[in-house]
Amino acid sequence: MTPDSSALVIGFDADDTLWHNESIFEKTHERYRALLAQYHDAATVDRTLYATELRNLELYGYGVKGFTLSAIETAIQLTDGKIGAEEIQHLILLGRDMLAHPVELLEGVEETLAALASRHRLLLITKGDLRDQERKLAKSHLAAHFRHVEIVSEKNELSYAEILRRHGIAARRFLMVGNSLKSDILPVLALGGAGAHVPYHLTWAAERVEGVPQAAGRFFQLENLRGLPAVVAALANPNFS
Amino acid sequence: MTPDSSALVIGFDADDTLWHNESIFEKTHERYRALLAQYHDAATVDRTLYATELRNLELYGYGVKGFTLSAIETAIQLTDGKIGAEEIQHLILLGRDMLAHPVELLEGVEETLAALASRHRLLLITKGDLRDQERKLAKSHLAAHFRHVEIVSEKNELSYAEILRRHGIAARRFLMVGNSLKSDILPVLALGGAGAHVPYHLTWAAERVEGVPQAAGRFFQLENLRGLPAVVAALANPNFS
Repeated sequence: MTPDSSALVIGFDADDTLWHNESIFEKTHERYRALLAQYHDAATVDRTLYATELRNLELYGYGVKGFTLSAIETAIQLTDGKIGAEEIQHLILLGRDMLAHPVELLEGVEETLAALASRHRLLLITKGDLRDQERKLAKSHLAAHFRHVEIVSEKNELSYAEILRRHGIAARRFLMVGNSLKSDILPVLALGGAGAHVPYHLTWAAERVEGVPQAAGRFFQLENLRGLPAVVAALANPNFS
Repeated sequence: MTPDSSALVIGFDADDTLWHNESIFEKTHERYRALLAQYHDAATVDRTLYATELRNLELYGYGVKGFTLSAIETAIQLTDGKIGAEEIQHLILLGRDMLAHPVELLEGVEETLAALASRHRLLLITKGDLRDQERKLAKSHLAAHFRHVEIVSEKNELSYAEILRRHGIAARRFLMVGNSLKSDILPVLALGGAGAHVPYHLTWAAERVEGVPQAAGRFFQLENLRGLPAVVAALANPNFS
């Protein structure tokens, strides 16, 4: 281990990077479309729900509770108020199911974190509902690998800069790992850090961006977390600084 | 200023300590009772809503979004599903009004924080919805007074101990100020710190506790934040350690 390598701090996104999340939302969307199928086609339902979510994002923030409220609001709108209380109660239960859903780790997560934690300071940096994210971390049994856990309301240059400052981490010694180019990779590259993008097979529309980041030697594309130790080794090369 | 005094770190609760909060919930409760008045008396509405909130607390955590979901669920239950979609939309708007509500500071807050911040490290320690608490802090224009802002999902001995550890604060040099004996005062006294209780005229049932804390020289009762500098001066007395 070179000093360069040991000085590298690695941040991890949680949802869809360490464990499945968007797939749970997708299952809920399917049930939601079925509930409203007698009123509208699936595309209209999806489009209207997404518009409501975006409109409410500033006020509600990310997470299941805000999603559930947006789903109820959209259902009332799409049925011109004809939706029954029983169906709305069903939506509340769909939300509750999501919150109570088991945490299913993604491929290679457990062994990769265990291997890296012995040599590097690992941070968990996630956005969303405070209690929900804490609960998922507890259920994941991964908490012991992380030196710090940061649950933030938004992941952008400002929030990453604040986290790095607070923990005394130089951006050029920081690698962020996550499935979202927009939230996990681009802001960290902009600050001068490195990013390892591990795409999930589903991406929420609000997280989609066009193009591939241009940051030679600082941007890496991985299929799953098993490729991460090689990236860490590459960054330990003295050419990276 | 004695060294003892400058070494004192002061933590502040936010809702109902720095700004009005429970009064906003109380206004919403009034509108909620009116909405359901044709089905049930006010006491039944209050009791059932509170039971739903407590049942959902573990899953939803604190905050307006969880409250709104519990209010919808309770309304469906109390009307045997007869409540209309329009009334449910009204409940969603009530929740939104709470989130968008202006922040109104309590008496003496601004000048007391300004005076203390020049001599002491001030922390804001609050529980609830991440985005909502951040928004209220921004609206309050008080953020600059606080060295650290901690938004936690629960305020108990464990979470206070973790905050003190993270910031390298000895409990005996820590004073917590807040309106809730249960969340702000008792856990800090148990850790060996000091507590200044500043009651708000309304207390949510889930925050109520019986009796007065027994911790001579470490527990203080204030009418408003204007009394705080005197408490800080008393704690700076070398007898406190």
